[in-house]
Amino acid sequence: MPSPTRKKRAAAGPQFDLAAYLDRAVPFVDQGLDRLLPPARTKPRTLHEAMRYSIFAGGKRLRPVLCLAAAEACRGDWEAALPLACAVECVHTYSLIHDDLPAMDDDDLRRGKPTNHKVYGEGVAILAGDALVTHAFELVAGSLGWARYNHQALVGELAHAAGSLQLIAGQVADLEGEGAQLSRAELKYIHERKTSALLCCSVRLGGMSANCRPGELKALTDFGYHVGLAFQVIDDILDVTQSTEKLGKTAGKDEAVAKATYPSLVGMEASRAIARRLTRRAFRALESFPKKRAAALHALAEYLLNRDH
Amino acid sequence: MPSPTRKKRAAAGPQFDLAAYLDRAVPFVDQGLDRLLPPARTKPRTLHEAMRYSIFAGGKRLRPVLCLAAAEACRGDWEAALPLACAVECVHTYSLIHDDLPAMDDDDLRRGKPTNHKVYGEGVAILAGDALVTHAFELVAGSLGWARYNHQALVGELAHAAGSLQLIAGQVADLEGEGAQLSRAELKYIHERKTSALLCCSVRLGGMSANCRPGELKALTDFGYHVGLAFQVIDDILDVTQSTEKLGKTAGKDEAVAKATYPSLVGMEASRAIARRLTRRAFRALESFPKKRAAALHALAEYLLNRDH
Repeated sequence: MPSPTRKKRAAAGPQFDLAAYLDRAVPFVDQGLDRLLPPARTKPRTLHEAMRYSIFAGGKRLRPVLCLAAAEACRGDWEAALPLACAVECVHTYSLIHDDLPAMDDDDLRRGKPTNHKVYGEGVAILAGDALVTHAFELVAGSLGWARYNHQALVGELAHAAGSLQLIAGQVADLEGEGAQLSRAELKYIHERKTSALLCCSVRLGGMSANCRPGELKALTDFGYHVGLAFQVIDDILDVTQSTEKLGKTAGKDEAVAKATYPSLVGMEASRAIARRLTRRAFRALESFPKKRAAALHALAEYLLNRDH
Repeated sequence: MPSPTRKKRAAAGPQFDLAAYLDRAVPFVDQGLDRLLPPARTKPRTLHEAMRYSIFAGGKRLRPVLCLAAAEACRGDWEAALPLACAVECVHTYSLIHDDLPAMDDDDLRRGKPTNHKVYGEGVAILAGDALVTHAFELVAGSLGWARYNHQALVGELAHAAGSLQLIAGQVADLEGEGAQLSRAELKYIHERKTSALLCCSVRLGGMSANCRPGELKALTDFGYHVGLAFQVIDDILDVTQSTEKLGKTAGKDEAVAKATYPSLVGMEASRAIARRLTRRAFRALESFPKKRAAALHALAEYLLNRDH
């Protein structure tokens, strides 16, 4: 009997070619970021080079691509979603730069390259992160704005997801949880904030850029929330099972700093089952969309479940 | 013959009581911040406590008060300006927290108290700064928005002033300038960004919250720019002439790290003359406003020129 994942894949249409989709979407995002960030030669050069160093360090562009795919699911187009997709990627990159600092996770390697502070020093790395999160809001301000979702709604959306109750709350709880014995509820609290909040925000902003209906926004929220949680469970699994080379970041880190993870709490097999269950919930959230329009979102969620790095 | 400063003071009306004005305005801002920031008990507590620690560490509230006074100058009221005034104070406080970090200015003392990272550790201090700048945009998104200045304009305004071309550019140039021989033009470049940009933004946002006319916004821009430059020249002078106790932050710091300042470049007396000239330029920018309406802005600029800490 095929696994539920495979069944759903068939339901979404086996003909969806995610590799071809990413071959179009990723360069589209890359070009957008290149156009929407200040050029590297802008004064002060060190700062703008540092911002671009991490933005163009080979990220998978998962969040911006989810944003574009969500726009598509709601009859929107990539061009209108692009500033919001880039804003989310700026927030994501800033959070990685700051997380990698010696005062936080103290990581030397990210996406197979030296981390920002290793190249530019801690001071500039902190400021490059600061500049990226600030630029994210400038990008949202520079977006079109839509009938149902004006700039007030868009900025509020991003600020909330990136703020002290979500993304940053997750990072603080993660930091404080090191070496502590966490319950599953506490671990879920961290994952919801550290990972799910910005992923969810990415698809919501995509939907908003298509001036989506309230019901569609609700479905996207549900989808983003579950994909985000599944993403983090898989991340924790890969930290155990994969090599530093494969991941492009230091493997085995969680165990080294005694970080609570799903594998450490419930074991590897149960963690895999949880990730699959969360992904099925994400699939279910897409059922209200016509299959073809949501095919990219569906394929992305499946890809994230089965990825090996 | 009275100095031009005194002449202008007379022109603004000798009856303006700045002390009484600040006695009303500062608690108004404090109460606004208390209401508009997440409570200290909000999870994660460490983060929200750290945010509030620096916000309520006894700052002079110069920028928010300038914002309120600018609103007044344009027939606006304090209540409408308040979220923007608080947003600017959040940005200012975040920039201080990050500037004080060991990787930057490495300061142990701010406003007479231990700096944020001394109390909460570097990791939480970085995240508290991140949370404050993010919250600033949430506050702008939560403001009313006005006919001439919608949320797009307000967010763009703050993001630009706080971004990689202004506030952060100034901080990077300041960091890179330590130990270097700077020209007056290079020093001005730093001051314009490090100090003037956010001060200017404060009065502009105040004007916008009063739905000010374009000519009024231009006058406020001119005022804020020159007050900002004068403020930094005075700051450099006080770093030499005042004690750590008086300043509430480490005095003599600029010389210790061989930072270029106006006193080091042109001498103390010439620096004082420059600050007076800049303040006169700021006064001149106010001439297009009815005297009474701009009296608070006028008195604030004069106070900043003559302050001793």
